[in-house]
Amino acid sequence: MLSALEHGLNTITPVDLPGTLSDAADLDKYCADWSGLHGGRPALVYRPRSSEDVARIVRHHQGEQQRITIQGGLTGLAGGAVPDEGDIVISMERMDRIEAFDEIGGTVTVQAGVVLARLAETVEAQDWYFPLDIGARGSCQVGGNIATNAGGNRVLRYGPMRDLVLGLEVVLADGRIVPMMNSVLKNNTGPDLKHLFIGTEGTFGIVTRAVLRLFPKPAARRSALCAVPSFAKVAALLKAARGRLPGLSSFEVMWEDFLLASSRALGRAMPFAQAHPIYVLIEAEGGATPQMQDIFEGFLGEMIEEGMASDVIVAQNHEQSHALWALRDAIGELLKSLSPFVSFDVGIPLRATGEYIERARAQLQAAFPSTSHLFFGHLGDGNLHIVSGPHASEADQLKVDEIVYRLVEEVGGSISAEHGIGRIKKPFLHMSRSEIERQLMAQLKATLDPAQRLNAGRIL
Amino acid sequence: MLSALEHGLNTITPVDLPGTLSDAADLDKYCADWSGLHGGRPALVYRPRSSEDVARIVRHHQGEQQRITIQGGLTGLAGGAVPDEGDIVISMERMDRIEAFDEIGGTVTVQAGVVLARLAETVEAQDWYFPLDIGARGSCQVGGNIATNAGGNRVLRYGPMRDLVLGLEVVLADGRIVPMMNSVLKNNTGPDLKHLFIGTEGTFGIVTRAVLRLFPKPAARRSALCAVPSFAKVAALLKAARGRLPGLSSFEVMWEDFLLASSRALGRAMPFAQAHPIYVLIEAEGGATPQMQDIFEGFLGEMIEEGMASDVIVAQNHEQSHALWALRDAIGELLKSLSPFVSFDVGIPLRATGEYIERARAQLQAAFPSTSHLFFGHLGDGNLHIVSGPHASEADQLKVDEIVYRLVEEVGGSISAEHGIGRIKKPFLHMSRSEIERQLMAQLKATLDPAQRLNAGRIL
Repeated sequence: MLSALEHGLNTITPVDLPGTLSDAADLDKYCADWSGLHGGRPALVYRPRSSEDVARIVRHHQGEQQRITIQGGLTGLAGGAVPDEGDIVISMERMDRIEAFDEIGGTVTVQAGVVLARLAETVEAQDWYFPLDIGARGSCQVGGNIATNAGGNRVLRYGPMRDLVLGLEVVLADGRIVPMMNSVLKNNTGPDLKHLFIGTEGTFGIVTRAVLRLFPKPAARRSALCAVPSFAKVAALLKAARGRLPGLSSFEVMWEDFLLASSRALGRAMPFAQAHPIYVLIEAEGGATPQMQDIFEGFLGEMIEEGMASDVIVAQNHEQSHALWALRDAIGELLKSLSPFVSFDVGIPLRATGEYIERARAQLQAAFPSTSHLFFGHLGDGNLHIVSGPHASEADQLKVDEIVYRLVEEVGGSISAEHGIGRIKKPFLHMSRSEIERQLMAQLKATLDPAQRLNAGRIL
Repeated sequence: MLSALEHGLNTITPVDLPGTLSDAADLDKYCADWSGLHGGRPALVYRPRSSEDVARIVRHHQGEQQRITIQGGLTGLAGGAVPDEGDIVISMERMDRIEAFDEIGGTVTVQAGVVLARLAETVEAQDWYFPLDIGARGSCQVGGNIATNAGGNRVLRYGPMRDLVLGLEVVLADGRIVPMMNSVLKNNTGPDLKHLFIGTEGTFGIVTRAVLRLFPKPAARRSALCAVPSFAKVAALLKAARGRLPGLSSFEVMWEDFLLASSRALGRAMPFAQAHPIYVLIEAEGGATPQMQDIFEGFLGEMIEEGMASDVIVAQNHEQSHALWALRDAIGELLKSLSPFVSFDVGIPLRATGEYIERARAQLQAAFPSTSHLFFGHLGDGNLHIVSGPHASEADQLKVDEIVYRLVEEVGGSISAEHGIGRIKKPFLHMSRSEIERQLMAQLKATLDPAQRLNAGRIL
């Protein structure tokens, strides 16, 4: 590993900004957590408080060799926020102001470093709702959610982060601040430039501020676990729920072995007396009226009558709902027992999902008969998660990657539905994106960041 | 007007494609309709049947002076599809195949020239639903809807066209075909390149095919006309409806003078015995169950109790619903009586809308006391339409433009919510987009179409 000195740290005169880390011991401490992720020690860590600070940093270091790594809450799963040795890091942690809250229009203006859970709590206290919700909510930052186009459990109803961003401000690689702080839902005044920066993982610009779209806070949330007789019925159940269940917000599918493993991890019996091949956790948001409860329960009753569900557990209160969600969220516990595991977040067209899982499971079991291969996902969005483990050797891990991704390519799916490409999935990008698309991405990068300074080496 | 010959038509050897118009008489007939729109006679009109045809045309004419104008259904309101004298026109009318219909996943794959109404009817026959709906549905084409990011009456629930496009194929100015035919809702594999082409009015590439997202066909649609005592109550009514009315799909606001004019145009009495300052047409989609009807009527009753509505007419059947919508759609008739009129499609933050309208109305009335100034719009999306007329002179029309747009700029709104910029709104673009944004647009144009051949002179 080269030292920061060999990278020319001695030639850097940092911008004078409070909170900057440049001392070797501080830097070692700062990056202690990612040492396992093939990252290196940065030359400097800036912690700016304003967009102008960010622009100053970027301009100040132009013409130097150091590349810039942008950091949010460090919760990403694709290695995008881990710096290379000698990088300049810009951490957004101090840009954490909620700047404005429009309670009439339902919008909020924030700096990029605002933590997602704090945003959600702030607006809910005013009877508004920011629906993006992911496991990392307590430490991930809004800027990171934007840069990675975060997804989560409610994409089915509200879309991913992209759909929740009305306006954006970014700092370009040349230090220009681009103000695109639109606050209206419909704005057709030429190219909607914010999409250049949403989901591009900081490679085209640094997200510094945003205007986000809010929704009225739902008065009630209803959940149920459905046992389903076959995958073909899952697709029919989804269409029926989308059409007949007002406020459908989640449709989480778990195959039998996943539910067995998660029940075991929680020290609980399986939720149904009989075993079923597939389970779906359904949630709907809406008014707290008795009619809405009637519609919810009536819909589930019809699903049983029509043969789309074999059995249903309807949560009668918040605790029961929480217990159902615990089965889905037990993946955190499960992962520990499967470590070292390989995990996937792929997008599969619904019509191909049943066959995809059969083939992937068969191939994984043939190659690794004694390891676990668990399937679950946000099937309402075509988003399938797979966890396979334990796999001790890198060669085995690579073999799992190859089985899973080759089948994704065959069905025209996406190798990353919500986690992004970062560094970790770069070798597989060509399986989801054509040669011409990759050329076009490189052309855009060359236009916006010709010296390849921002989050270099990610995605492409 | 220069003739095509003077522009060098005699030097063009057309691609050999059936259906191409190159004869002067045919061309005159073809463009007879836009002669008033400051357009010119094109040198050639191609009517390709495939993406490969389009790519061949673009490549064949590289290095020549002729610019390329792309035409869909010619229903745009910003002059974007009108060619300059001597342009090569590519009309998408023969690229009208619905290529694939995935009834499990709910997606449809189409060529760009498919007419919107035909798409809607085709999928509805299979119990699916494509929700984009605009007045031009019978002749506008899907490719044009994508290129202009069309909006309409249901953006509140389904988003604009951008949100309905899963995958896209475009032909670039250098003739490369870019396949981005994604069909999954969540796909985070680097830059989502389709957004470079959605809403950019054909200036960055030619939309040739798309994968579109479908929804289950709603079993019922319910509508009601609410009389509202003040604009402040409109904002509160909107928030209540978004939170408490499942399936809310439209929230159309009409000020009193609009409703007076539209009732008169239809030869009807005003719908309520008393006069009210503002009216809101609400529509909700969803199940055909009695509980849903209860919820709809119960919500409206609560709005009266809570003082957010003064009176309500609930449509009891399809005919009554149609009669309520006729009031909103009478704008087509109204326009004839106001001709020559100036019309606007602006985006205003909801919190500023009340004041915006007061000031705009006062200034317009002071400048033109004897003309009509009508206000209405999709307020659920922050989209306000204004029609002012008759205005005989161009100087007067320009003055109206200046009053309306200056106030838009002051409240940080958008000078075009859904119609786009095209040629007609170019002079005002700077009022909604900053200098840096316009620089960035120009950089992207230079990257994707360095010779400025595609729909040149639009937007920037």
